[in-house]
Amino acid sequence: MGRTSDAKEKIISAAQSLIELRGYSSLGVAEICKTAGVPKGSFYYFFESKEVLALAVIDEHWAGQQREWTGILNSDGEPLHRLRQLFEVTESGQRAGQQSRGTVSGCLFGNLTLEMSNQTEAVRIRLQDIFDAQVEMVDSVITEALERREVTVTDTREAARSVVAQLEGQVLFAKLYNNTHHLSPLWANCLALLGARAPQVASTGI
Amino acid sequence: MGRTSDAKEKIISAAQSLIELRGYSSLGVAEICKTAGVPKGSFYYFFESKEVLALAVIDEHWAGQQREWTGILNSDGEPLHRLRQLFEVTESGQRAGQQSRGTVSGCLFGNLTLEMSNQTEAVRIRLQDIFDAQVEMVDSVITEALERREVTVTDTREAARSVVAQLEGQVLFAKLYNNTHHLSPLWANCLALLGARAPQVASTGI
Repeated sequence: MGRTSDAKEKIISAAQSLIELRGYSSLGVAEICKTAGVPKGSFYYFFESKEVLALAVIDEHWAGQQREWTGILNSDGEPLHRLRQLFEVTESGQRAGQQSRGTVSGCLFGNLTLEMSNQTEAVRIRLQDIFDAQVEMVDSVITEALERREVTVTDTREAARSVVAQLEGQVLFAKLYNNTHHLSPLWANCLALLGARAPQVASTGI
Repeated sequence: MGRTSDAKEKIISAAQSLIELRGYSSLGVAEICKTAGVPKGSFYYFFESKEVLALAVIDEHWAGQQREWTGILNSDGEPLHRLRQLFEVTESGQRAGQQSRGTVSGCLFGNLTLEMSNQTEAVRIRLQDIFDAQVEMVDSVITEALERREVTVTDTREAARSVVAQLEGQVLFAKLYNNTHHLSPLWANCLALLGARAPQVASTGI
């Protein structure tokens, strides 16, 4: 296999799976390469360090999640309906992960924030950028809902941050209890945090 | 120093500081003993493994936090006022940690949940017990507030879980951005999550 871009993708993919199972710190380069099925020598051809690999894993994961979030939050539906879809997709994604891996792995960005953010500034800044982007996407939807007088918050940015914080907190519990039911209250809690006037938005059926 | 209970306390205290700075996985027994100022040989006299030490660190930290939470949440003040005090004490505790260590270290239990809960069942169960106890303490206060018709939630346990999830999510952001201001919205968000009828409870001035 060796030094092909295919090998690079295999290393990133193996590292992501291992990080989701066990976190970053306990992983070694040899184990990552073994899981990826590539010779150990090829690692440093693609990645200057384990930290550079962590950044690549974060970028790859965010590229996929950003596409998913954009598809949902920029769609044509009613604003609050789109937020509900986001929670439903999050819950079904965690459930699918639990079915395939046996445990709820939680949010990769939340996991790495609590494990790594006080250790490497490059990772901290990348994770800040991602959470800022998430908050901005949610903020846009809340602003639309505010223009339609469906919510009563005054500071849409802070409200968006609180909605994402609620998501991260409940995902933490879903991981700890290995139970995705902890994600069920997200929609009602989001409405409460937004002072929503329209709590009876129909289910999307996802 | 050697094999005295003093050495055991020093190991636990050093491990707690190191875990708060860097997490658990990257720590070695030699480094913990060096930081504690005790001979490496004494580690296994007190602790069968690094995991047993992690459990001791968790128990020690919870003993202190449980005393603090009990003091606040079982006090004579009005129920919502006590919840507000809990957030204020959390914010000032994180600020004090930031001033002494240079970075917001976040919640030890949240950090270890995301780093370790999928790796060791003993740690997972201990952390579940602690979060269950936190939720139960908050639930009792919400139940009192409900009896006084100050909140409108119907499921006090789920509401308490959501309040603790909001706390964990915002503490995650405080750590990521190294900024305790992320804890400021906790009180308003708690009132929103509880459907509180009395949003103008006076500040405790902490």
